Amino acid sequence: MQETRLDTARIRAARRVIDPIFLDSPLYRCDALEPELGCAVSIKLETANPIRSFKARGTELVASQLAGNGSRAVVCASAGNLGQALAWSGRRRGLDVTVVASRFATAAKLDRIRALDAKLELVDGDHELARDRAADIARYDGIRLLEDSLDIETCEGAATIGLELVDNEPSFDTVLVALGGGAMATGIGHVLKAFAPDVEVICVQPLGAPAMTHSWRQRRVITTDSTNTIADGVAGRRPIPAVLDDLLLVADDAVLVQEASIITGMRMLLHHAGLVVEPSAALGIAAILEDRPRFAGRHILTIICGSNVDPDTYHHWVSS
Amino acid sequence: MQETRLDTARIRAARRVIDPIFLDSPLYRCDALEPELGCAVSIKLETANPIRSFKARGTELVASQLAGNGSRAVVCASAGNLGQALAWSGRRRGLDVTVVASRFATAAKLDRIRALDAKLELVDGDHELARDRAADIARYDGIRLLEDSLDIETCEGAATIGLELVDNEPSFDTVLVALGGGAMATGIGHVLKAFAPDVEVICVQPLGAPAMTHSWRQRRVITTDSTNTIADGVAGRRPIPAVLDDLLLVADDAVLVQEASIITGMRMLLHHAGLVVEPSAALGIAAILEDRPRFAGRHILTIICGSNVDPDTYHHWVSS
Repeated sequence: MQETRLDTARIRAARRVIDPIFLDSPLYRCDALEPELGCAVSIKLETANPIRSFKARGTELVASQLAGNGSRAVVCASAGNLGQALAWSGRRRGLDVTVVASRFATAAKLDRIRALDAKLELVDGDHELARDRAADIARYDGIRLLEDSLDIETCEGAATIGLELVDNEPSFDTVLVALGGGAMATGIGHVLKAFAPDVEVICVQPLGAPAMTHSWRQRRVITTDSTNTIADGVAGRRPIPAVLDDLLLVADDAVLVQEASIITGMRMLLHHAGLVVEPSAALGIAAILEDRPRFAGRHILTIICGSNVDPDTYHHWVSS
Repeated sequence: MQETRLDTARIRAARRVIDPIFLDSPLYRCDALEPELGCAVSIKLETANPIRSFKARGTELVASQLAGNGSRAVVCASAGNLGQALAWSGRRRGLDVTVVASRFATAAKLDRIRALDAKLELVDGDHELARDRAADIARYDGIRLLEDSLDIETCEGAATIGLELVDNEPSFDTVLVALGGGAMATGIGHVLKAFAPDVEVICVQPLGAPAMTHSWRQRRVITTDSTNTIADGVAGRRPIPAVLDDLLLVADDAVLVQEASIITGMRMLLHHAGLVVEPSAALGIAAILEDRPRFAGRHILTIICGSNVDPDTYHHWVSS
């Protein structure tokens, strides 16, 4: 197999750098979901930590590296979860963290970034504009730009989830991973292809933000002019070529799901599993809902990657 | 110190018997709760497992013992969580599990007990009547009666939570534990008093189900005629003398809280921590809310002991 940019030895080493609070997250069967879904369902729960998403696995690597080489500052663009994670990892290492986000980002995420003492700069546009602005700040201030999915630490941090999945002989047939920029999908995919090549890796993206899925299908970068999805954590328009190259090596499929399925997935996870999840974290359940025959009788694992929601909006989704 | 019925060596050994899926549950600071509570708050999350409560730590011990000595059947009374746990632990060991519950018990809990292949028998009365009925069944059928809090496995199973709390030098000053029959409080209290005697152990019970708290205060068993609380998991009326004796040795205080505080606690855990919890699991937060000056500036740990709720009822609580 052609090689991704990720390195298995570095991923193993990452476990010694990441605060244990983010490692060895719960992994268990959710029987109560199964009658409605028609397949066995296990979840890997990445929300039971201080920042309520998996993103700190990557920011711990970056922040510890920066602190180690005497850097004082770092900037990233974020839909909100990477920013929270970088703020958390940076604060405890004395780093000045700047997060650039869209002013349309989930308010609860922005509030938490501020509460974690990061400097928050809002742009009047979408996530891609925030990416441009973060790059400008890095250039102007001469500080490290952390680019989600492009920077290998974000992929290898996420890949430590993969190590935990293959720790024992995996009992699942398929892993459903939310697809946005691609850090989580390439990270987990890399490890699964290395240690459990028979496990199918399926990426799931909203129909309203399909750029990376279209790119994967056509094997070249496809951008879109806009996004339209409640799954704010995966709403990019400009896939990164190097990440697409990796994704082409590790993903077995990439599927698109409707907003209504995402909402049904969120509601099912609340009612049957007692889990609050943000829309991106329900993409896997949405994929099962939209193609039950494909998954019937199989054992599916999906990563519950985040739970940062605005209470009122969440309430509206799960009650609708 | 006078000794409880619990044995530290057995508690350590229990970790080798309990399915790892129930061990080493998440333990983390919840910054987002802190501004409103005025103290540092850490949580030990016992809901991220297949039965959504801590009770399987105890039932794993009982079921493995029964399977080991060739027993085929076991019966317990339960408000719902112990029954689910025993059904889960018994099913994978080929045991016939009977659960006796009040017909007024939380429907979601009863549904899960049935889904886990246990025989469910409902009594037309409260939990104490279910206890009597379970004892009758055990006597009549000649099978093992599992009695929550009285049977040492339920206390020592819960005590493994305590081991995880003292694993590193504890950074918290006080542990707030939900108090019902007393298994969790005596279990965790035993370990804390042994390994971290400076940590204060405070039991929290609803004003509407105060029997064990009154008993602790008066150092003798006090029963009540009825209970009136939404915290179904801790709504007993007849404390068990041997459990009270243990509780007198390990608890530094026992406090009672109002229903409104429990509901506010549930809502705060949902909105600020993204956690669905059942009323019993919000007792610790309720205790802080009712006496902020007592806890101001301290570091409090509370155990989120269960998340089994009826969706509609839960929705009503957190929206009210």
